[in-house]
Amino acid sequence: MADGRLVIGTKMYSSWSLRGWLAVHLAGLNVEEVLIPLDGGRTNSVKDATPSGTVPYLEHQGAKVWESLAIVEYCAEFAPGLWPQDRVTRAAARSIASEMHAGFRALRQNMPMTILNSFPGQGATPEAMADIARIDAIWQDALAASGGPFLFGAEMGGADVMFAPVVCRFLTWRPAVSAASQSYMQAVRAHPLMQRWYAEAEREPKAWRLPHYEAPKA
Amino acid sequence: MADGRLVIGTKMYSSWSLRGWLAVHLAGLNVEEVLIPLDGGRTNSVKDATPSGTVPYLEHQGAKVWESLAIVEYCAEFAPGLWPQDRVTRAAARSIASEMHAGFRALRQNMPMTILNSFPGQGATPEAMADIARIDAIWQDALAASGGPFLFGAEMGGADVMFAPVVCRFLTWRPAVSAASQSYMQAVRAHPLMQRWYAEAEREPKAWRLPHYEAPKA
Ligand SMILES: N[C@@H](CCC(=O)N[C@@H](CS)C(=O)NCC(=O)O)C(=O)O
Ligand SMILES: N[C@@H](CCC(=O)N[C@@H](CS)C(=O)NCC(=O)O)C(=O)O
Repeated sequence: MADGRLVIGTKMYSSWSLRGWLAVHLAGLNVEEVLIPLDGGRTNSVKDATPSGTVPYLEHQGAKVWESLAIVEYCAEFAPGLWPQDRVTRAAARSIASEMHAGFRALRQNMPMTILNSFPGQGATPEAMADIARIDAIWQDALAASGGPFLFGAEMGGADVMFAPVVCRFLTWRPAVSAASQSYMQAVRAHPLMQRWYAEAEREPKAWRLPHYEAPKA
Repeated sequence: MADGRLVIGTKMYSSWSLRGWLAVHLAGLNVEEVLIPLDGGRTNSVKDATPSGTVPYLEHQGAKVWESLAIVEYCAEFAPGLWPQDRVTRAAARSIASEMHAGFRALRQNMPMTILNSFPGQGATPEAMADIARIDAIWQDALAASGGPFLFGAEMGGADVMFAPVVCRFLTWRPAVSAASQSYMQAVRAHPLMQRWYAEAEREPKAWRLPHYEAPKA
């Protein structure tokens, strides 16, 4: 029997869900997956299923956890390796994870996660490009310090989890980024859990597709 | 000698700075305070002083930490009491702290923190009021479970730190909230560190005032 459940949205589109899902799987929590197809707010199906009205949402051994970053922190209590062992490096990892959690709104609005699509060169507003420049700098700094292939070394960790949907966005929208960031994107994309997420997204019914995500904004 | 420095903005206005400042003081970190007057982006004074271009920013014993929530987590490593001791309750505290960190944009835009002013009944757009209803529910749930006077019991903790600027906003803009939330606001306002922040804000030079914050939006 499972220790609880993880509620997520459509794998094609739900960027925040990907974070919760990666964290739970990296930490090895034994939870049942409950997928609610996103419908762009037409119904209250997500709203009514979770305390904050959003996915991801985790119930585990009596705990109720929402917000992707809180789920990462919760999982890190079971799998401390999600954060770097060194205090100074851990502070850096948490800083960029929090910056991702609260920020990069222009990127999120102009280059939504829509992982089966390819829209190279689209969505590149000046505000989105400023977000991308900052992300590229964050990745380069972390990779230079750790040696890669993940932000803080050999294994995918909490900071990578928070940035994974950005990798998905970049693979769809293809903004120009540094060579270091490109290698990083390949490492993330090649991770077994990412392979699985993409494969499962491909098997999602066509009926779940939302027009909003299936073409770049005019 | 201090162990580092905390860079913050104008106490009258800088809501995120209040969080970093409270966390550092609650944890008893020995850091020098560096205050950069916010100037609404006219100069790069904040931008050039910190890795993310934002305050608060903490340097402490070799660590560089930005983003208010990352600063709270960093401080909680020195003062674990900032989060509830019980795993399930800690998950709840982190969920609402993260929800605050990433959300409530309409509230933030329509009811900015401007702690020496009183604008009762202003700024109450439908979107801001929806944010406020959610915050009121979050506070009521936590207070009912803990018994108050703070969200998770007797002492101000990490979740209270994240919501402290919301208390400041509510004291200025006075939206209607439940009796439980009103008592909570009084408890936060009466905390010695909050008394000190308000007193220090009152002593800030008039020249630091920004028109944007000194009147409700038309
Ligand atoms: N800051 C939240 C954001 C979660 C979020 O906005 N999730 C979207 C889907 S990616 C959602 O649930 N939207 C409500 C809906 O589609 O009805 C987190 O980190 O989990
Ligand atoms: N998510 C960040 C937000 C920080 C933020 O936006 N701070 C504002 C001041 S309250 C800032 O530094 N703005 C830049 C400026 O005023 O030049 C955090 O949690 O620290």
